Amino acid sequence: MAEQSSLGEFGAIAAYFAPLAGPEGLGLLDDAALYTPPPGQTLVLTKDAMVAGVHFFPDESPMLVARKLARVNLSDLAAMGAEPVGYLLAVAVPKDKAEYWMKGLAEGFAQVQMLLDWRLWGGDTVTTTGPVTLSMTAIGTVPEGQALRRSGARAGDRVFVSGTIGDAALGLLQRQGKLGQLPQEAADFLRQRLCLPNPRLGLGVALRGLAHAAQDVSDGLAADLGHLAAASGLAARITLERIPQSAAAREVMDSFPELKPQIFAGDDYELLFTVAPDRVAAVAALSRDLNLALTDIGEMCDPATVDWTGVRLFHEDGSAAEEAIGGYRHF
Amino acid sequence: MAEQSSLGEFGAIAAYFAPLAGPEGLGLLDDAALYTPPPGQTLVLTKDAMVAGVHFFPDESPMLVARKLARVNLSDLAAMGAEPVGYLLAVAVPKDKAEYWMKGLAEGFAQVQMLLDWRLWGGDTVTTTGPVTLSMTAIGTVPEGQALRRSGARAGDRVFVSGTIGDAALGLLQRQGKLGQLPQEAADFLRQRLCLPNPRLGLGVALRGLAHAAQDVSDGLAADLGHLAAASGLAARITLERIPQSAAAREVMDSFPELKPQIFAGDDYELLFTVAPDRVAAVAALSRDLNLALTDIGEMCDPATVDWTGVRLFHEDGSAAEEAIGGYRHF
Repeated sequence: MAEQSSLGEFGAIAAYFAPLAGPEGLGLLDDAALYTPPPGQTLVLTKDAMVAGVHFFPDESPMLVARKLARVNLSDLAAMGAEPVGYLLAVAVPKDKAEYWMKGLAEGFAQVQMLLDWRLWGGDTVTTTGPVTLSMTAIGTVPEGQALRRSGARAGDRVFVSGTIGDAALGLLQRQGKLGQLPQEAADFLRQRLCLPNPRLGLGVALRGLAHAAQDVSDGLAADLGHLAAASGLAARITLERIPQSAAAREVMDSFPELKPQIFAGDDYELLFTVAPDRVAAVAALSRDLNLALTDIGEMCDPATVDWTGVRLFHEDGSAAEEAIGGYRHF
Repeated sequence: MAEQSSLGEFGAIAAYFAPLAGPEGLGLLDDAALYTPPPGQTLVLTKDAMVAGVHFFPDESPMLVARKLARVNLSDLAAMGAEPVGYLLAVAVPKDKAEYWMKGLAEGFAQVQMLLDWRLWGGDTVTTTGPVTLSMTAIGTVPEGQALRRSGARAGDRVFVSGTIGDAALGLLQRQGKLGQLPQEAADFLRQRLCLPNPRLGLGVALRGLAHAAQDVSDGLAADLGHLAAASGLAARITLERIPQSAAAREVMDSFPELKPQIFAGDDYELLFTVAPDRVAAVAALSRDLNLALTDIGEMCDPATVDWTGVRLFHEDGSAAEEAIGGYRHF
């Protein structure tokens, strides 16, 4: 509580953050926020942190960083079928850049709030001698007993993923200058996918009562499906050719075939979910309703009836695909 | 999500943090925590951050840092009359010290949890190239409509403070080597008061329906009373000689009279609260019940009937005391 700027800490909070506050935030003037959930609702709470130089480029605009932090947290809420209601922030910024960051972050959060009935409830602003470090606690609600979990998958379930996979990893390589000169449209698309993931909130809500298990893709498709499989006590198989890729990603991977394994590396913040085989038609209908690709990429398996644990990759002809994507075996 | 240690991130979370998790934390294996508050309860949510080198000494033991972080957050819950139910953590640590910190922090939180029915619900562990940076979101509950606020004080209310004031500021000066050689007992006491504040949770609960307004002392007694007065649209007067000081603090200030203003500088995490004049006897009874000093230090005033705004200091004889404590006029 020692940051100095032309406005001072309390002045900067009043100028930039107080306009973002919901009534639960008590004008950001009290010791804590107050929230009474509607009867029959369960709270969903998640917390993600981001460090400059680790999770975002130090020269990235604060506005863009705020939007990514918000979207990453919202993606966790989406994965559990929750609707966002509020958030708290911890902001650690160098003293001489405190006001620049607070102003820019607030602009970014304001943009997110324009799209959602989701308000700032409180937090803390401190100075640091190190890199900008941010954390957000996002709070959502879901009707009691309807939260999506990682652990509900059943053997025989089809595995679906939303949107396209691999864009974020390629966006990062591009930002690091490792992809050479891409066509502008592809470059913009991949950068957008890296910096501004789309939390699949509408999908998460629609999957209540439909999906047996769900989670978002934040550690990479195979690793995350591995988490879901482990939590459900199952194995899983993915058909490599079915993994949905954007036109931009396909274009890049055609030029750089050695990047194929990157499809499993990125934090795409799409939803991964499993449904009973007889609900596949319902998923197709949902895909049309939401105008969002929902692609059947594989199957959950009983580890007792297959000869592996975790996640295995296969080609469409049934042959093993691990070799085809090189040494990528993090799972 | 990139920290490496002998256990790896997921291994370290499983080894150190999962044992701290309540059922709401879903074994720390899901995307978020789930909590259904009992009917009729309002949630109280607060978030505080701490940075090595700013809020604690970089060589401080992780266990002690965890305990301070917990207690600081619990103090915010206490100030609103809430009972703690859970917390989420964000931990940013250098890669080469990740396991050391996670292990030590978990030990510290485990110690706090032994005293309270308060469990870890989730969070995020990341690496940083800078100082250790921690944030906690603490969640509590209070019966609907009974939360203590800063804004409820009324003119004529007596101003009370719990415990003793100034110890934390002196503990910091001592830790910085600015107090010379103190008697061991005094040194230990002041250090304890700095590193391990006592969140006044029992007092906060007992003040429901008794105090008109409350908050904890985290920016210094006068500054915090200033916040409370501003939130209530009032002014306040404090009688300097009534401010409760520990024997150790009195001893130090007798030797270093120039430190007198430090009484207003520290984060003592005591509770500051106001009650109607006819409830003073109830506060005295509460003090006996809790075996905790609750001292009447002043009065809330209608700014229209006194000639000042904010907080003013007076001697017992009614003369102005600002001069007596030097230039300390942060309020």
